[in-house]
Amino acid sequence: MSTARVGVIMGSTSDWDTMQHCADTLQAMGIEFETRVVSAHRTPDLLFEYAGQAAGRGLQVIIAGAGGAAHLPGMCAAKTALPVLGVPVQSKALNGMDSLLSIVQMPAGIPTGTLAIGRAGAVNSALLAASIIALQDPEVRTRLEAYRAAQTERVLAQPDPSEPTA
Amino acid sequence: MSTARVGVIMGSTSDWDTMQHCADTLQAMGIEFETRVVSAHRTPDLLFEYAGQAAGRGLQVIIAGAGGAAHLPGMCAAKTALPVLGVPVQSKALNGMDSLLSIVQMPAGIPTGTLAIGRAGAVNSALLAASIIALQDPEVRTRLEAYRAAQTERVLAQPDPSEPTA
Amino acid sequence: MSTARVGVIMGSTSDWDTMQHCADTLQAMGIEFETRVVSAHRTPDLLFEYAGQAAGRGLQVIIAGAGGAAHLPGMCAAKTALPVLGVPVQSKALNGMDSLLSIVQMPAGIPTGTLAIGRAGAVNSALLAASIIALQDPEVRTRLEAYRAAQTERVLAQPDPSEPTA
Amino acid sequence: MSTARVGVIMGSTSDWDTMQHCADTLQAMGIEFETRVVSAHRTPDLLFEYAGQAAGRGLQVIIAGAGGAAHLPGMCAAKTALPVLGVPVQSKALNGMDSLLSIVQMPAGIPTGTLAIGRAGAVNSALLAASIIALQDPEVRTRLEAYRAAQTERVLAQPDPSEPTA
Amino acid sequence: MSTARVGVIMGSTSDWDTMQHCADTLQAMGIEFETRVVSAHRTPDLLFEYAGQAAGRGLQVIIAGAGGAAHLPGMCAAKTALPVLGVPVQSKALNGMDSLLSIVQMPAGIPTGTLAIGRAGAVNSALLAASIIALQDPEVRTRLEAYRAAQTERVLAQPDPSEPTA
Amino acid sequence: MSTARVGVIMGSTSDWDTMQHCADTLQAMGIEFETRVVSAHRTPDLLFEYAGQAAGRGLQVIIAGAGGAAHLPGMCAAKTALPVLGVPVQSKALNGMDSLLSIVQMPAGIPTGTLAIGRAGAVNSALLAASIIALQDPEVRTRLEAYRAAQTERVLAQPDPSEPTA
Amino acid sequence: MSTARVGVIMGSTSDWDTMQHCADTLQAMGIEFETRVVSAHRTPDLLFEYAGQAAGRGLQVIIAGAGGAAHLPGMCAAKTALPVLGVPVQSKALNGMDSLLSIVQMPAGIPTGTLAIGRAGAVNSALLAASIIALQDPEVRTRLEAYRAAQTERVLAQPDPSEPTA
Amino acid sequence: MSTARVGVIMGSTSDWDTMQHCADTLQAMGIEFETRVVSAHRTPDLLFEYAGQAAGRGLQVIIAGAGGAAHLPGMCAAKTALPVLGVPVQSKALNGMDSLLSIVQMPAGIPTGTLAIGRAGAVNSALLAASIIALQDPEVRTRLEAYRAAQTERVLAQPDPSEPTA
Repeated sequence: MSTARVGVIMGSTSDWDTMQHCADTLQAMGIEFETRVVSAHRTPDLLFEYAGQAAGRGLQVIIAGAGGAAHLPGMCAAKTALPVLGVPVQSKALNGMDSLLSIVQMPAGIPTGTLAIGRAGAVNSALLAASIIALQDPEVRTRLEAYRAAQTERVLAQPDPSEPTA
Repeated sequence: MSTARVGVIMGSTSDWDTMQHCADTLQAMGIEFETRVVSAHRTPDLLFEYAGQAAGRGLQVIIAGAGGAAHLPGMCAAKTALPVLGVPVQSKALNGMDSLLSIVQMPAGIPTGTLAIGRAGAVNSALLAASIIALQDPEVRTRLEAYRAAQTERVLAQPDPSEPTA
Repeated sequence: MSTARVGVIMGSTSDWDTMQHCADTLQAMGIEFETRVVSAHRTPDLLFEYAGQAAGRGLQVIIAGAGGAAHLPGMCAAKTALPVLGVPVQSKALNGMDSLLSIVQMPAGIPTGTLAIGRAGAVNSALLAASIIALQDPEVRTRLEAYRAAQTERVLAQPDPSEPTA
Repeated sequence: MSTARVGVIMGSTSDWDTMQHCADTLQAMGIEFETRVVSAHRTPDLLFEYAGQAAGRGLQVIIAGAGGAAHLPGMCAAKTALPVLGVPVQSKALNGMDSLLSIVQMPAGIPTGTLAIGRAGAVNSALLAASIIALQDPEVRTRLEAYRAAQTERVLAQPDPSEPTA
Repeated sequence: MSTARVGVIMGSTSDWDTMQHCADTLQAMGIEFETRVVSAHRTPDLLFEYAGQAAGRGLQVIIAGAGGAAHLPGMCAAKTALPVLGVPVQSKALNGMDSLLSIVQMPAGIPTGTLAIGRAGAVNSALLAASIIALQDPEVRTRLEAYRAAQTERVLAQPDPSEPTA
Repeated sequence: MSTARVGVIMGSTSDWDTMQHCADTLQAMGIEFETRVVSAHRTPDLLFEYAGQAAGRGLQVIIAGAGGAAHLPGMCAAKTALPVLGVPVQSKALNGMDSLLSIVQMPAGIPTGTLAIGRAGAVNSALLAASIIALQDPEVRTRLEAYRAAQTERVLAQPDPSEPTA
Repeated sequence: MSTARVGVIMGSTSDWDTMQHCADTLQAMGIEFETRVVSAHRTPDLLFEYAGQAAGRGLQVIIAGAGGAAHLPGMCAAKTALPVLGVPVQSKALNGMDSLLSIVQMPAGIPTGTLAIGRAGAVNSALLAASIIALQDPEVRTRLEAYRAAQTERVLAQPDPSEPTA
Repeated sequence: MSTARVGVIMGSTSDWDTMQHCADTLQAMGIEFETRVVSAHRTPDLLFEYAGQAAGRGLQVIIAGAGGAAHLPGMCAAKTALPVLGVPVQSKALNGMDSLLSIVQMPAGIPTGTLAIGRAGAVNSALLAASIIALQDPEVRTRLEAYRAAQTERVLAQPDPSEPTA
């Protein structure tokens, strides 16, 4: 039995630049997680094994980041009834529009909860996972609310942008 | 205290054509829900009240459907730490591309889990909500797994498409 | 051992409207084929079994048609080293642009040969399969060349479009 | 009572790079303004307070700059009957196309006057505000007309571009 | 001297289907207006005359609707310092994306306040014009506020969409 | 009477980076031309004067380069019956897609012959102008044919790209 | 020697719906023309023969209409130094955006003068051809100017669109 | 008779940056190939000669890379019944979206098997060619399977991305 509650997978090590913001945010939420490179196209059997065993291993949410013809989140969702969140990684030619459409436009029957392209989506995938886990875990809920209150405070404390900084 | 566990809101009654597929699927999952027209732009105070009180009223997930400059899911997420799922309704001129981008491209800090444009997204928002609730409710989990098994069976049972139907 | 040389699969029976043009063209080429509904998302195990056994069963080319977040061709290619051709089915909201990008933007390592969106792509997937099989089968080559000569003749025989038809 | 006639708000300090061109142009027009970071998503209550009190505080126009799922202008307009102008800030992945559609595609009932993506839009939001204020303020009108005459003169005075500069 | 305060122009009579929603809304606001077909491309001299004389004739706002390579709002703005609002009419091939970009992407120096594509944009152009005129005309302000309060009421009064209508 | 046969105009000096490739190519064709900054938005009267007098001054073709909401070619065509060619300059946010659509999507009645975005379009505008002038000027025709033969030769002389260069 | 001065070709008889507007307009201009179905893909040799002999046969302008991967105008231009005008025919899935980009984005060296997608582009291709021929033919010039004056008159004579028609 | 089994052509030497990844991969597959610059637009006769003679010279697959209005793959396919694979080279302004649509949207009758934009597509064109040739050549099949097994191994061997590298 894994102690991780969230599995963070990505199609390639090059996606780590993006997905580390997911990992950092999960850590800030105090949520145990694991990270792994799982390629839908180059390691399809690993993907099926990983997604198929996720619930049994105690994972509660899977976060999958991928770019281009990004099949990782959708195929993961095809093999588990756990909530699967997808992060479209910004692709070189099409800036992540291909990643976004490949992840979000799932047919009726198999959902992926899709976040924004790139870093913002990676951060938000962790926050959405936290909001899901918070439904049963008051400590995560407390940390999530504190996190959000702090970010509100930071905006409120910002000086007038037209003022020269000292 | 509401008995509903999922709040399904939409920006306009014209969105009901799409969002009823969400309602039908929640019903199939045996999940109590409520439906309401809440317009981010025409009833902003109601939106803030609704989202702000959602957790206290016992809601666990909010599903928001909207089209065009679709601000409903994101503004809902700004006012609650509950999981918020967004359904981009197909818009007249831009076919829902505007709805999709307005919902999914949230900045770091406030997530919306976005589904596909239109009917498929509406169905899937209910299934994703079910997968979230199933983490604590074994009955919902059972129904979700049965639903998915049944849809797999239906595909497996399909005849060769090139065969003439009797 | 299957007698089919081309496997034509599609994500849903609703794709048959498009993919029957593939079947008709394969028939015109005198190439044995089989057709089957295989959904990447709803029947992932069937997909893996189908693609994994394709070469062993004697298939030489797989043609996969799918729409939206179209993962069928790419996941098929992940499980076989046979040539896999993808037909983007025109989707409701985004007119097949999502289907196209989900099929064509594969990462280095796992190719799909992608055809045009819709009916033209379905016809052409059969012709491309024929050109592949023709490399070893002179009869298919002859039929393919005759097919192409005939379509050239039909264009050459067209009357001046500005002339009123009798 | 504020002495500012235009309120310039933006979703994040990173938008200041763009919005300072709005501030500079308002200054050139001799129009009193205030600038503030107000995030629709991270400080929704501040947004409602700001927009709700704007007319009472004596503001005549609100200019809101935001990027990505840019909800700031539209939600501002939902809370005030003052003219609200929106500046789509160029986003990282989608170059501001998401910002533009999120701002401009408002439903019937709540308008935002949208300007071009980025710096040009920021400058022009100030000029459009000036043209609105000029309807009641002859001095602003005079300055606006002088500004436009000067920019016409600058173009007329440009040398033949194919001539080498001395 | 015209008694009209708003000039509503459009590139072609076929734009009237869209722009009549602007006229209807101006009428509901009790704002005097005039309507005219002025084509930037087929009647450029009329456009220059119209825009050049608008301020002198007492117009306060110009609303211009056009589709495709929609030059009418921008060229109007080039010839007047009055506020110019642009309504992108939905075009046949590109659904108004060409109209939108042709209107909104103005260079720094000459602004157009752009509304949504189609009917919603036409309605909103009138409401934005009303908000501009309301700065000096308390009666228009009262009517605008009443209009917005009424539309809020209509949403609040909507029944639960999942209830069968009697 | 101008000695120039082609008028090359552009909306801003910043467009010269692109349009100088037009000038260079006209020079290579031995075609007399003039270059001038004419802004549709900042100097509309100059534009009307320039386009209105072009035929009378002896110009045979007008080439107009502009970016963003690029109204220069279309408004030029509105004021002259000479052939007008448009070069979409690559814009900052939208990479020239806005420029392209603003130039090419002209309504029936007023044509602009549109070339590719950026440098290639600038070169080609000169070549298309040359092909037009060549209809009456055998010397230009000879130079154009020599130019094209030379570029064919350059391609034919290219070494195998996989060979290491000495 | 052909008596036609303009060659109007199209990739398929289905393009005639669009291209007949080109033919009608050429007729209104009193310009002799010929029409022919020439498919770049199905009759490439005919295309090369047609384009290669066009100048020798006395044609002065070639107008080519095509949809989808529209190679007809560009390949025509590759085989002749005559002016080649391209009309993007509206395609089924992508509404002519594919046709437009395939025609307009030519590399430096081989130009096509591209018109709008669909009927407007077809009309305008004829008018642009007329403006080219008018440089040497005063009668065509007279007819073109009359045509344009008449269309200006038609707009000027249009009644106020808000007036009920008798 | 050529000893090459695959002909790799490209529209310009600047495409070599992309297409060398095709050449490298063919080499890794042990497949004899030739590379050549053939421009559809600047050397159309060479293209027709090359494609027309390809089958006779013993080529089995043609891979064509091109950018912008990328006509090379489609025109190649028009002149041969061999399998033609197209690689959309990333273009400067539109990031290869123009290249992709120009290659993939072929009309029914003449297929091109299209790969991803840029480097990934170049690699994959070689792998797809290998899968085609492998149908008759067991050695290529063995090398292709080894190549794919090796890339699977490389992914499986990747360390946890969140672990600091030693």
